[in-house]
Amino acid sequence: MITLSLVGIGSGNPDHLTRQAVQRLETADVILLPRKGAEKTDLADLRRMVAGEILSTSPKIVEFDYPVRDANTPKYLDGVNTWHDALAGIWQDLISRHLPSDGHVALMVWGDPSLYDSTLRIADRLVARGLQLKVDVIPGITSLQMLTAAHAIPLNTLGAPVLITTGRKLRDDGWPADADTVAVMLDGECSFTHLDPTGIDIWWGAYVGMPQQVLKSGALANLSEEIVATRAKARAESGWIMDIYLLRKS
Amino acid sequence: MITLSLVGIGSGNPDHLTRQAVQRLETADVILLPRKGAEKTDLADLRRMVAGEILSTSPKIVEFDYPVRDANTPKYLDGVNTWHDALAGIWQDLISRHLPSDGHVALMVWGDPSLYDSTLRIADRLVARGLQLKVDVIPGITSLQMLTAAHAIPLNTLGAPVLITTGRKLRDDGWPADADTVAVMLDGECSFTHLDPTGIDIWWGAYVGMPQQVLKSGALANLSEEIVATRAKARAESGWIMDIYLLRKS
Repeated sequence: MITLSLVGIGSGNPDHLTRQAVQRLETADVILLPRKGAEKTDLADLRRMVAGEILSTSPKIVEFDYPVRDANTPKYLDGVNTWHDALAGIWQDLISRHLPSDGHVALMVWGDPSLYDSTLRIADRLVARGLQLKVDVIPGITSLQMLTAAHAIPLNTLGAPVLITTGRKLRDDGWPADADTVAVMLDGECSFTHLDPTGIDIWWGAYVGMPQQVLKSGALANLSEEIVATRAKARAESGWIMDIYLLRKS
Repeated sequence: MITLSLVGIGSGNPDHLTRQAVQRLETADVILLPRKGAEKTDLADLRRMVAGEILSTSPKIVEFDYPVRDANTPKYLDGVNTWHDALAGIWQDLISRHLPSDGHVALMVWGDPSLYDSTLRIADRLVARGLQLKVDVIPGITSLQMLTAAHAIPLNTLGAPVLITTGRKLRDDGWPADADTVAVMLDGECSFTHLDPTGIDIWWGAYVGMPQQVLKSGALANLSEEIVATRAKARAESGWIMDIYLLRKS
């Protein structure tokens, strides 16, 4: 049986790695390392740096290219599923070529493998294809945790719930019925501009946990335009952006 | 100005510490270490083990007793707030006695300081009392992340939201309108028994991430009684329990 470790590596800083994450990577026979493609180069470089500089061992590094995701597929989820299928095929091929049948292969996952990440779904596909696979998940610090840490705020108010959602869902569904705090991830479109900002505070961050981190917080009514402009400028300058925010009814 | 580092240490295993958490604890002048009181002894012991065995430096360890929380205060939140006030008084006294005015004091926090934790609220009270304080938050792996890792499941389904809530809110409010996945923390009463279990799957864990970890997963209708019984037995045997679960509409 093959062991596949999905290792959360945190959000842009090798110091986010846990002792457990380092240990799992160090004891792997093979680390599969995506070259870039879907990812920004700075992020791909950090994975390579972790493999090259943080580990005290030298597992075999096998690089691979991401398949290209077809953004034109009519239904968004179909496009994602097809892409996951293609990626599962690539992993399966690399595992069969580079690993003994009882080997240990690891992948580094941004943030935590449980949160808006594809790797567990791809691993499920390998199992469905009949691969004898033990999936081993190592949690990592998420960008949401880096956001609340950077602003030094709690995620929840006292004893109260929090909804974690996407920009798309916030636009489609509006403010949720069951939570006064909403954390928004995967939002390429500043979807907070679709809300009535009255009585809502925002804590926004881009590149959270990285040296170029940018933070803004205050009343959404006052900050909405400023964040849209700051985001556009930072994205133009860097060539890429990852941002995240927390909204709270005051 | 004093720097107060609130350092997330994860959920019961020193290998959950990040490199950043270790570094912050190592560079502190003083580490405030709660003796027990509100906490289970096994957990208090782990903090002491981290301070004594994991760090490569020897910050001054200052132990303190938790104030006793008055569970009989008529309003739950008033009881919590009074308790936070008392704890803020203890921290302030210890900081003034053991730390220079530009010193660095650290506290180890279970899980992550942002999630259902009091330390940020206590730090806010110190600032409100006029202490010149820079609050530095270091994220840690939460029990929710340990739960999803142990079950090797994603927190969210593809592109879908997740509500993080408490047992109390689940009992009071029922299933939320805006999410098909609900993560429940701080539940001493198996509040899932208050739901109609039809079409709901549960992933439950106690002592997640620790050697005595117990996991159950499946249809809530089939597992509800079994979890209640398992929880009661484990609690009776250990003298304490911490459990957490994820519910998902199938």
